[in-house]
Parts: sequence; C-alpha cells; structure tokens
Amino acid sequence: MGVIKKIFNKSRPSNEKDGIFFDEMKKLLGFKPIALSHYRRAFTHRSSNKTDAQGNPINYERLEFLGDAMLGSVIAAHLFTEAPTGDEGYLTKMRSKIVSREHLNELGRDLDLISWVESNVAPQHFGENIHGNLFEAFIGAIYLDRGFTYCEKFIHKKVIGPYVDIARLEGKVISYKSLLIEWCQKEKKKFHFEVYEDNGVEGQKYFGVRLKIDGNVIAKARATSKKKSEEKASQRAYFALQEKINIK
Amino acid sequence: MGVIKKIFNKSRPSNEKDGIFFDEMKKLLGFKPIALSHYRRAFTHRSSNKTDAQGNPINYERLEFLGDAMLGSVIAAHLFTEAPTGDEGYLTKMRSKIVSREHLNELGRDLDLISWVESNVAPQHFGENIHGNLFEAFIGAIYLDRGFTYCEKFIHKKVIGPYVDIARLEGKVISYKSLLIEWCQKEKKKFHFEVYEDNGVEGQKYFGVRLKIDGNVIAKARATSKKKSEEKASQRAYFALQEKINIK
Repeated sequence: MGVIKKIFNKSRPSNEKDGIFFDEMKKLLGFKPIALSHYRRAFTHRSSNKTDAQGNPINYERLEFLGDAMLGSVIAAHLFTEAPTGDEGYLTKMRSKIVSREHLNELGRDLDLISWVESNVAPQHFGENIHGNLFEAFIGAIYLDRGFTYCEKFIHKKVIGPYVDIARLEGKVISYKSLLIEWCQKEKKKFHFEVYEDNGVEGQKYFGVRLKIDGNVIAKARATSKKKSEEKASQRAYFALQEKINIK
Repeated sequence: MGVIKKIFNKSRPSNEKDGIFFDEMKKLLGFKPIALSHYRRAFTHRSSNKTDAQGNPINYERLEFLGDAMLGSVIAAHLFTEAPTGDEGYLTKMRSKIVSREHLNELGRDLDLISWVESNVAPQHFGENIHGNLFEAFIGAIYLDRGFTYCEKFIHKKVIGPYVDIARLEGKVISYKSLLIEWCQKEKKKFHFEVYEDNGVEGQKYFGVRLKIDGNVIAKARATSKKKSEEKASQRAYFALQEKINIK
C-alpha cells in the first residue's frame, strides 16, 4: 500500500481523463488526491446503477455515513478548543447548528459539487439535499483516501475558516453587513456591493456579489438571493479584515 | 510543543505521584501518555468543584462530548470497511448498537475507570451511567493527548477487538457459550468454567470467570452475573481461537 501510495502521489495519472479529474480534484481539495476511485464514488448517484465485482452497489450513499462522522468529530474538536467556557450541552448545540442540513447544503452548493455528479436522472430531480449529501460523501472520500488529518485540513479550510463563527452561531451577531457598514463609516471608507453574476433562472436564482472597499475587492460570495450574497460577502470580508486589523 | 512532547515522552515523571499515575495510565492505554493533565481531567467529577485560572470548571463533562465524537467516527470507519454490503441505514443502526449507553457502561466498568475518579461524593451516588461517561471522557483525553491515530488504536484494542462482532450485533449469534460448547464436543475437547472471583456484595454482585479448555485458561471475564461472565468469556475465547483455527 505504501509503495502504491508513493507512485500515485508522485504525479498525475498519464491517461487524459484521469489526469483532468486529478487536476480538478487537487484544486477542490487543496492537496493531491491519491486514489481517485474514492472521489469518483463520492460523485456517483444511485441512479447510475453501478455495482462492484461482488454485486455491491457503487454510489455515494455509504460515504455520506462516513463523512458525517468525520465532520462531526472535526467540528467537535474545534469547538472543544474554541469554546473553553461552553459546557457539554452548549457544545452539542453549536455542533448541530454547524452540521445542520441547511448549512451542509450551502457548503456543497458553494463548492458546486453537483457539477461532478454522474447519474441517470436529470439534476432537477435530485432534490435540495443532494448538495449536503455530496458534501458529506466528499469528506468520506477524503478520509478513505488520505486519512483523518487531511479530512481535518479540508474541513478547516472549507468549513471552519469561512463559515464557522461562534459569535454568529450564538446569535450575538445578527448581520455582518451592518457590522461592516458601521466599521466603514467609522473608518471613513467607501464600500460598494457589485452584482457580477445573476443567472436569471426563475426558481433557481443565483447571485454573485463582490464587496469593494475603497475600490478594492475584499470578498466575493454566491447565494440564492442578493441579500444572502451580500451578507455572506460581508462575513467573509469581516474575517479577512480581522486578520489584518481589529475591526471592532 | 515538539520539544516538550519529546521530553515527556522519553521517560516517566520524576515525582512519585505523577510517576505512579503515568505507569498506570500507560498500562491502561497500551502506550505512553504525554500530558497527564488530560487524563486527570478525565477522572475529575464535577463534585470536586475544581476550576482553572480563568474560573472555568475542570471536570470530565466536556471531554465526554469530544470522546463521543471520536468514538463515533472510529466505529463508523470500522463498520464502513467491515460491512461492505451494508447500506447507510444499516451502518447507522450497527453503530448505535455499539455505542449504546449500556455498552459504553460495560466498557467503562470493565476497565474499572471508576477506581480513578476524584470526587466529593460517595461512589454509590454516581449512578450507573458514570462508567460510560468516564469511558467517553477517557477517549476525549486520548485525542487531546495523542491525536486521532492513538484514539483509533485504543478503540480498536479495547472496544472493537473484544466487543464488536457484527454477527452478534445482527442477532445472528445468540450465545457464544453454546457455540463454544458445540465446538468442544465436535473437537472432543473438555471445557470448564471456573469462578475465580465473587465479591458477594448484594446489589453490586461481581463475578470473575475463567474458561479452561483441556486444562488451559483460554479466556477470563468479569460481569454482574455468573451467566454473563460465562457468555463474555466464551465470546473472548471464540475470537482467541478463531485467530488460530477456524472454529466453525
């Protein structure tokens, strides 16, 4: 296994189809995938009716179970450290908020995981929860491919960094947009939200918004409404700025 | 941190109290502990009213949350591999059986974790669930001290190896004792259950049983009744023998 890992890890697969998939997974993951089959499975919908040599179905449903567990423990470890005053009940409640179906759907949608799905049904029949399910399955695939540490790395980068904010989850911060506007006024800075994407599809609306401060793009976000995109971009800007200055 | 780890890892603490605790934790863990404070916390009952410098309570309750999450993901990964034909629902059901309150209490009780507890209330006031709670907290302490891999190692050795048997969980095997008796008869071997411990305390009875096959001790077990001890010893013997021969 060690030897196989080394060979695969060295370079991208030579055949074109696998090579492209490798590149794209690497971009999505932020590190090199090793066994591509796990990621392919993570994008295989049950409608594709694939089976392995033993007749077991190949699709992402079992991976969801695994990914859900890994996500739960990475978030638990993060909350344990970040909320040192919270008791068991508090930690449990916070984790439920982070791994809520709604939140997982948002995460999966933002990564556009659905664009990878292999299926025999049209995307509009998938239902809203497919985004969250794919997200969980993808985490499961990372665990199988690279182990817990890489799972943790991915979750920190894609979930905890951009989305997990304890103050917000506790309901202490209602709107990042108002927090940001307040700060801009105090600092005499000009801000401007700019729509750069509007797919215009009724029922499946999608907006992309850029937040500029003094003419510089500070954050971007996509969501199902303009208001949501602006709030998300404000939150991202808030954290980006916080790293440089004390925004409060 | 790396340097601190190395120093602590090299040898047991020189002061006597820590040295003894180190030795006993090492025995319990099957590997060396590094930061003993995590294990001390895992055995600190809330009644001890301890607090840290910031006034946060020091007890094992938050560690239960962490340990529960780690246990859940290690068991999930194990089931994912060991039950390749089981779907998401099956995997979820199997995991619930393994991490049931009853089962966790059994695990904690078998490791006699309660003997380490520091508290200001008498042990009879703890309630039955303390065994499982201590077990979860102990797993949480392992994670903080040594990370996921050691957590996994410990859970495999203390939970999965001796207790997790998919056939039994599925209800396919009702009694290991009868399975073992059947095998002994077929193989013309003599078996004998020997009580080596009977604490005789009414209401808190405890039995220790040895299972001998052809005069050799194959397995031992302790439980709250003679019947349970025999069943547990039979299960252990079954797995011990299975490693050497095909018992079926």
